[in-house]
Amino acid sequence: MAYHLLQRDQAGAGELAHAIMTALATLKHCQLCNTFTESDICEICADENRTHEQLCVVEMPTDLLMVEHTLAYHGLYFVLMGRLSPLDGIGPKDIAFSRLLERASDGIVKEVILSTNFTVEGEATAHYLAEMLRARGLTVSRIARGLPVGGELEHADPSTLAQALVERRTLTG
Amino acid sequence: MAYHLLQRDQAGAGELAHAIMTALATLKHCQLCNTFTESDICEICADENRTHEQLCVVEMPTDLLMVEHTLAYHGLYFVLMGRLSPLDGIGPKDIAFSRLLERASDGIVKEVILSTNFTVEGEATAHYLAEMLRARGLTVSRIARGLPVGGELEHADPSTLAQALVERRTLTG
Repeated sequence: MAYHLLQRDQAGAGELAHAIMTALATLKHCQLCNTFTESDICEICADENRTHEQLCVVEMPTDLLMVEHTLAYHGLYFVLMGRLSPLDGIGPKDIAFSRLLERASDGIVKEVILSTNFTVEGEATAHYLAEMLRARGLTVSRIARGLPVGGELEHADPSTLAQALVERRTLTG
Repeated sequence: MAYHLLQRDQAGAGELAHAIMTALATLKHCQLCNTFTESDICEICADENRTHEQLCVVEMPTDLLMVEHTLAYHGLYFVLMGRLSPLDGIGPKDIAFSRLLERASDGIVKEVILSTNFTVEGEATAHYLAEMLRARGLTVSRIARGLPVGGELEHADPSTLAQALVERRTLTG
Protein backbone atom coordinates (compact mmCIF):
# COMPACT_ATOMS: atom_id res chain seq x y z
CA MET A 1 0.00 0.00 0.00
CA ALA A 2 2.84 2.35 0.90
CA TYR A 3 4.60 1.83 -2.47
CA HIS A 4 1.36 2.19 -4.41
CA LEU A 5 0.62 5.54 -2.75
CA LEU A 6 4.14 6.95 -3.10
CA GLN A 7 4.56 5.82 -6.73
CA ARG A 8 1.12 6.61 -8.13
CA ASP A 9 -0.88 8.81 -5.80
CA GLN A 10 1.23 11.21 -3.79
CA ALA A 11 -1.73 13.54 -3.23
CA GLY A 12 -3.68 10.60 -1.79
CA ALA A 13 -0.72 9.74 0.43
CA GLY A 14 -0.82 13.28 1.83
CA GLU A 15 -4.55 13.03 2.47
CA LEU A 16 -4.14 9.68 4.19
CA ALA A 17 -1.38 11.03 6.43
CA HIS A 18 -3.53 14.02 7.28
CA ALA A 19 -6.55 11.84 8.06
CA ILE A 20 -4.51 9.62 10.37
CA MET A 21 -3.03 12.67 12.14
CA THR A 22 -6.53 14.11 12.63
CA ALA A 23 -7.84 10.81 13.97
CA LEU A 24 -4.91 10.54 16.38
CA ALA A 25 -5.50 14.10 17.59
CA THR A 26 -9.27 13.87 18.05
CA LEU A 27 -9.73 10.24 19.09
CA LYS A 28 -10.80 9.67 22.69
CA HIS A 29 -12.34 6.84 24.67
CA CYS A 30 -16.05 7.02 25.49
CA GLN A 31 -16.41 7.87 29.19
CA LEU A 32 -19.09 5.21 29.55
CA CYS A 33 -18.17 2.28 27.33
CA ASN A 34 -14.46 2.94 26.66
CA THR A 35 -14.69 2.50 22.87
CA PHE A 36 -13.15 4.97 20.36
CA THR A 37 -15.15 8.15 19.88
CA GLU A 38 -14.57 11.80 19.02
CA SER A 39 -16.96 13.11 21.69
CA ASP A 40 -17.07 12.46 25.43
CA ILE A 41 -19.90 9.94 25.10
CA CYS A 42 -20.14 7.71 21.99
CA GLU A 43 -23.23 7.55 19.77
CA ILE A 44 -24.32 4.16 21.10
CA CYS A 45 -24.15 5.16 24.78
CA ALA A 46 -25.98 8.40 23.96
CA ASP A 47 -28.80 6.55 22.17
CA GLU A 48 -31.85 6.63 24.43
CA ASN A 49 -33.68 4.01 22.39
CA ARG A 50 -31.28 1.27 23.45
CA THR A 51 -31.78 -1.00 26.46
CA HIS A 52 -29.70 0.41 29.31
CA GLU A 53 -30.10 -2.74 31.41
CA GLN A 54 -27.77 -4.92 29.33
CA LEU A 55 -24.03 -4.48 29.04
CA CYS A 56 -22.15 -6.49 26.41
CA VAL A 57 -18.45 -6.79 27.31
CA VAL A 58 -16.07 -7.14 24.34
CA GLU A 59 -12.31 -7.07 24.01
CA MET A 60 -11.80 -4.47 21.25
CA PRO A 61 -13.76 -1.80 19.33
CA THR A 62 -13.75 -4.08 16.24
CA ASP A 63 -15.62 -6.71 18.29
CA LEU A 64 -18.24 -4.08 19.16
CA LEU A 65 -18.70 -3.44 15.43
CA MET A 66 -19.15 -7.17 14.76
CA VAL A 67 -21.92 -7.39 17.36
CA GLU A 68 -23.56 -4.24 15.96
CA HIS A 69 -23.53 -5.80 12.47
CA THR A 70 -25.68 -8.67 13.69
CA LEU A 71 -28.55 -6.19 14.36
CA ALA A 72 -29.55 -8.64 17.12
CA TYR A 73 -28.39 -6.65 20.14
CA HIS A 74 -29.97 -3.46 21.45
CA GLY A 75 -28.22 -2.96 24.77
CA LEU A 76 -25.04 -1.06 25.61
CA TYR A 77 -21.38 -2.09 25.54
CA PHE A 78 -18.18 -2.00 27.50
CA VAL A 79 -14.88 -2.32 25.63
CA LEU A 80 -12.01 -3.73 27.69
CA MET A 81 -9.35 -2.61 25.17
CA GLY A 82 -7.54 -5.87 25.77
CA ARG A 83 -7.69 -9.20 27.54
CA LEU A 84 -5.93 -10.98 30.39
CA SER A 85 -2.73 -12.47 29.08
CA PRO A 86 -0.31 -13.51 31.85
CA LEU A 87 2.27 -14.77 29.33
CA ASP A 88 2.51 -11.23 27.91
CA GLY A 89 2.49 -9.73 31.39
CA ILE A 90 -1.03 -8.31 31.00
CA GLY A 91 -2.90 -8.63 34.29
CA PRO A 92 -6.20 -7.26 35.65
CA LYS A 93 -4.65 -3.84 36.37
CA ASP A 94 -3.62 -3.33 32.74
CA ILE A 95 -7.19 -3.62 31.47
CA ALA A 96 -10.18 -1.40 32.29
CA PHE A 97 -11.57 -3.89 34.86
CA SER A 98 -12.18 -1.38 37.65
CA ARG A 99 -13.93 0.97 35.22
CA LEU A 100 -16.15 -1.92 34.08
CA LEU A 101 -17.05 -2.80 37.68
CA GLU A 102 -17.92 0.83 38.37
CA ARG A 103 -19.92 1.07 35.12
CA ALA A 104 -21.85 -2.15 35.80
CA SER A 105 -22.69 -1.05 39.35
CA ASP A 106 -24.66 2.01 38.26
CA GLY A 107 -27.92 0.49 39.51
CA ILE A 108 -29.45 0.41 36.02
CA VAL A 109 -27.44 -2.44 34.46
CA LYS A 110 -29.05 -5.80 35.28
CA GLU A 111 -27.20 -8.23 33.04
CA VAL A 112 -23.61 -8.33 31.86
CA ILE A 113 -23.09 -10.42 28.71
CA LEU A 114 -19.47 -11.57 28.49
CA SER A 115 -18.58 -11.59 24.79
CA THR A 116 -14.83 -11.98 24.91
CA ASN A 117 -13.33 -14.37 22.36
CA PHE A 118 -13.27 -18.14 22.90
CA THR A 119 -9.48 -18.12 22.89
CA VAL A 120 -7.54 -19.11 26.01
CA GLU A 121 -7.04 -15.43 26.95
CA GLY A 122 -10.67 -14.49 26.22
CA GLU A 123 -11.95 -17.40 28.31
CA ALA A 124 -9.67 -16.53 31.23
CA THR A 125 -10.88 -12.93 31.06
CA ALA A 126 -14.52 -14.06 31.06
CA HIS A 127 -14.01 -16.35 34.08
CA TYR A 128 -12.24 -13.62 36.03
CA LEU A 129 -14.92 -11.03 35.23
CA ALA A 130 -17.78 -13.44 35.97
CA GLU A 131 -16.48 -14.00 39.50
CA MET A 132 -16.20 -10.30 40.24
CA LEU A 133 -19.50 -9.29 38.65
CA ARG A 134 -21.54 -12.07 40.25
CA ALA A 135 -20.14 -11.05 43.65
CA ARG A 136 -21.89 -7.72 43.08
CA GLY A 137 -25.26 -9.34 42.53
CA LEU A 138 -25.35 -8.89 38.75
CA THR A 139 -26.68 -11.50 36.32
CA VAL A 140 -23.73 -12.63 34.23
CA SER A 141 -24.07 -14.53 30.97
CA ARG A 142 -21.68 -15.84 28.31
CA ILE A 143 -22.34 -15.98 24.57
CA ALA A 144 -22.98 -19.50 23.33
CA ARG A 145 -20.40 -21.91 22.04
CA GLY A 146 -21.38 -24.55 19.52
CA LEU A 147 -21.94 -25.30 15.86
CA PRO A 148 -22.25 -22.37 13.44
CA VAL A 149 -25.55 -21.50 11.77
CA GLY A 150 -25.85 -23.72 8.69
CA GLY A 151 -23.23 -26.03 10.16
CA GLU A 152 -23.07 -29.80 9.71
CA LEU A 153 -21.75 -32.31 12.22
CA GLU A 154 -19.56 -33.84 9.54
CA HIS A 155 -17.55 -30.61 9.19
CA ALA A 156 -17.34 -29.64 12.85
CA ASP A 157 -14.09 -30.02 14.77
CA PRO A 158 -14.31 -32.49 17.68
CA SER A 159 -13.81 -29.86 20.43
CA THR A 160 -16.62 -27.68 19.12
CA LEU A 161 -18.96 -30.65 18.71
CA ALA A 162 -18.12 -31.80 22.24
CA GLN A 163 -18.96 -28.32 23.58
CA ALA A 164 -22.17 -28.23 21.54
CA LEU A 165 -23.21 -31.48 23.23
CA VAL A 166 -22.21 -30.38 26.73
CA GLU A 167 -23.94 -27.01 26.36
CA ARG A 168 -27.08 -28.39 24.72
CA ARG A 169 -30.30 -26.55 25.45
CA THR A 170 -33.43 -28.22 26.77
CA LEU A 171 -36.32 -27.38 24.44
CA THR A 172 -39.53 -26.21 26.03
CA GLY A 173 -42.87 -25.61 24.38
CA MET B 1 -9.12 -43.42 -8.18
CA ALA B 2 -10.70 -45.73 -10.75
CA TYR B 3 -7.94 -45.01 -13.35
CA HIS B 4 -5.20 -45.39 -10.76
CA LEU B 5 -6.48 -48.81 -9.73
CA LEU B 6 -7.06 -50.08 -13.27
CA GLN B 7 -3.72 -48.79 -14.61
CA ARG B 8 -1.40 -49.65 -11.71
CA ASP B 9 -3.03 -52.00 -9.27
CA GLN B 10 -5.44 -54.44 -10.88
CA ALA B 11 -5.10 -56.88 -7.99
CA GLY B 12 -6.05 -54.07 -5.59
CA ALA B 13 -9.03 -53.23 -7.79
CA GLY B 14 -10.22 -56.79 -7.49
CA GLU B 15 -9.82 -56.72 -3.70
CA LEU B 16 -11.71 -53.44 -3.48
CA ALA B 17 -14.57 -54.79 -5.59
CA HIS B 18 -14.71 -57.89 -3.42
CA ALA B 19 -14.70 -55.84 -0.21
CA ILE B 20 -17.56 -53.66 -1.44
CA MET B 21 -19.56 -56.73 -2.53
CA THR B 22 -19.03 -58.31 0.90
CA ALA B 23 -20.06 -55.11 2.67
CA LEU B 24 -23.19 -54.86 0.53
CA ALA B 25 -24.08 -58.49 1.25
CA THR B 26 -23.52 -58.40 5.02
CA LEU B 27 -24.51 -54.83 5.90
CA LYS B 28 -27.68 -54.46 7.96
CA HIS B 29 -29.25 -51.78 10.09
CA CYS B 30 -29.01 -52.10 13.89
CA GLN B 31 -32.43 -53.09 15.23
CA LEU B 32 -32.11 -50.54 18.01
CA CYS B 33 -30.31 -47.49 16.61
CA ASN B 34 -30.68 -48.02 12.85
CA THR B 35 -26.98 -47.45 12.05
CA PHE B 36 -24.95 -49.73 9.77
CA THR B 37 -23.84 -52.96 11.39
CA GLU B 38 -23.06 -56.56 10.47
CA SER B 39 -24.93 -58.03 13.45
CA ASP B 40 -28.49 -57.53 14.64
CA ILE B 41 -27.48 -55.11 17.37
CA CYS B 42 -24.48 -52.79 16.83
CA GLU B 43 -21.50 -52.61 19.19
CA ILE B 44 -22.58 -49.32 20.73
CA CYS B 45 -26.14 -50.46 21.54
CA ALA B 46 -24.75 -53.71 22.96
CA ASP B 47 -22.29 -51.89 25.25
CA GLU B 48 -23.62 -52.15 28.80
CA ASN B 49 -21.22 -49.51 30.10
CA ARG B 50 -22.99 -46.72 28.21
CA THR B 51 -25.80 -44.60 29.61
CA HIS B 52 -29.07 -46.07 28.34
CA GLU B 53 -31.07 -43.00 29.43
CA GLN B 54 -29.77 -40.68 26.70
CA LEU B 55 -30.53 -40.99 23.02
CA CYS B 56 -28.59 -38.82 20.57
CA VAL B 57 -30.49 -38.46 17.28
CA VAL B 58 -28.32 -37.91 14.18
CA GLU B 59 -29.05 -37.85 10.48
CA MET B 60 -26.48 -40.31 9.12
CA PRO B 61 -23.99 -42.97 10.35
CA THR B 62 -21.10 -40.56 9.58
CA ASP B 63 -22.62 -38.08 12.07
CA LEU B 64 -22.66 -40.82 14.70
CA LEU B 65 -18.93 -41.34 14.07
CA MET B 66 -18.28 -37.59 14.47
CA VAL B 67 -20.01 -37.58 17.86
CA GLU B 68 -18.10 -40.72 18.92
CA HIS B 69 -14.79 -39.03 17.98
CA THR B 70 -15.46 -36.25 20.51
CA LEU B 71 -15.24 -38.84 23.34
CA ALA B 72 -17.68 -36.54 25.16
CA TYR B 73 -20.84 -38.61 24.81
CA HIS B 74 -21.56 -41.88 26.58
CA GLY B 75 -25.21 -42.45 25.79
CA LEU B 76 -26.87 -44.30 22.90
CA TYR B 77 -27.83 -43.16 19.40
CA PHE B 78 -30.60 -43.23 16.88
CA VAL B 79 -29.75 -42.75 13.20
CA LEU B 80 -32.58 -41.33 11.07
CA MET B 81 -30.86 -42.27 7.77
CA GLY B 82 -32.05 -38.97 6.33
CA ARG B 83 -33.80 -35.70 7.12
CA LEU B 84 -37.06 -33.99 6.30
CA SER B 85 -36.75 -32.32 2.91
CA PRO B 86 -40.12 -31.32 1.42
CA LEU B 87 -38.46 -29.88 -1.70
CA ASP B 88 -37.04 -33.33 -2.49
CA GLY B 89 -40.34 -34.99 -1.57
CA ILE B 90 -38.95 -36.51 1.64
CA GLY B 91 -41.60 -36.39 4.36
CA PRO B 92 -41.93 -37.92 7.85
CA LYS B 93 -42.96 -41.29 6.42
CA ASP B 94 -39.75 -41.62 4.39
CA ILE B 95 -37.56 -41.41 7.49
CA ALA B 96 -37.44 -43.74 10.49
CA PHE B 97 -39.58 -41.41 12.64
CA SER B 98 -42.01 -44.02 13.90
CA ARG B 99 -39.13 -46.36 14.79
CA LEU B 100 -37.50 -43.50 16.74
CA LEU B 101 -40.74 -42.79 18.64
CA GLU B 102 -41.04 -46.46 19.52
CA ARG B 103 -37.36 -46.65 20.53
CA ALA B 104 -37.58 -43.51 22.71
CA SER B 105 -40.72 -44.76 24.45
CA ASP B 106 -39.03 -47.86 25.93
CA GLY B 107 -39.36 -46.47 29.47
CA ILE B 108 -35.57 -46.32 29.97
CA VAL B 109 -34.73 -43.35 27.73
CA LYS B 110 -35.16 -40.08 29.65
CA GLU B 111 -33.59 -37.51 27.33
CA VAL B 112 -33.47 -37.24 23.56
CA ILE B 113 -30.64 -35.03 22.26
CA LEU B 114 -31.49 -33.77 18.78
CA SER B 115 -28.18 -33.56 16.91
CA THR B 116 -29.36 -33.06 13.35
CA ASN B 117 -27.39 -30.53 11.31
CA PHE B 118 -28.04 -26.77 11.56
CA THR B 119 -29.09 -26.68 7.92
CA VAL B 120 -32.67 -25.76 6.96
CA GLU B 121 -33.60 -29.45 6.60
CA GLY B 122 -31.86 -30.46 9.83
CA GLU B 123 -33.57 -27.68 11.76
CA ALA B 124 -36.99 -28.58 10.34
CA THR B 125 -36.39 -32.21 11.29
CA ALA B 126 -35.40 -31.20 14.84
CA HIS B 127 -38.51 -29.01 15.28
CA TYR B 128 -40.81 -31.76 14.03
CA LEU B 129 -39.23 -34.40 16.26
CA ALA B 130 -39.20 -32.11 19.32
CA GLU B 131 -42.97 -31.64 19.08
CA MET B 132 -43.66 -35.36 18.85
CA LEU B 133 -41.17 -36.43 21.54
CA ARG B 134 -42.23 -33.78 24.05
CA ALA B 135 -45.84 -34.86 23.60
CA ARG B 136 -44.72 -38.23 24.99
CA GLY B 137 -43.29 -36.68 28.14
CA LEU B 138 -39.63 -37.01 27.18
CA THR B 139 -36.99 -34.36 27.88
CA VAL B 140 -35.84 -33.06 24.51
CA SER B 141 -32.66 -31.03 24.00
CA ARG B 142 -30.81 -29.56 21.04
CA ILE B 143 -27.04 -29.30 20.64
CA ALA B 144 -25.77 -25.74 21.04
CA ARG B 145 -25.33 -23.21 18.29
CA GLY B 146 -22.72 -20.50 18.63
CA LEU B 147 -19.07 -19.62 18.18
CA PRO B 148 -16.57 -22.46 17.68
CA VAL B 149 -14.04 -23.36 20.35
CA GLY B 150 -11.06 -21.02 19.88
CA GLY B 151 -13.28 -18.69 17.86
CA GLU B 152 -12.99 -14.91 17.74
CA LEU B 153 -15.86 -12.46 17.26
CA GLU B 154 -13.94 -10.78 14.47
CA HIS B 155 -14.06 -13.92 12.32
CA ALA B 156 -17.62 -15.04 13.11
CA ASP B 157 -20.37 -14.64 10.54
CA PRO B 158 -23.17 -12.28 11.65
CA SER B 159 -25.88 -15.00 11.84
CA THR B 160 -23.77 -17.21 14.08
CA LEU B 161 -22.80 -14.29 16.32
CA ALA B 162 -26.46 -13.24 16.56
CA GLN B 163 -27.41 -16.80 17.59
CA ALA B 164 -24.55 -16.92 20.10
CA LEU B 165 -25.98 -13.77 21.70
CA VAL B 166 -29.58 -14.98 21.68
CA GLU B 167 -28.63 -18.39 23.09
CA ARG B 168 -26.23 -17.02 25.71
CA ARG B 169 -25.94 -18.99 28.94
CA THR B 170 -26.41 -17.47 32.36
CA LEU B 171 -23.35 -18.29 34.45
CA THR B 172 -23.93 -19.61 37.93
CA GLY B 173 -21.40 -20.26 40.65
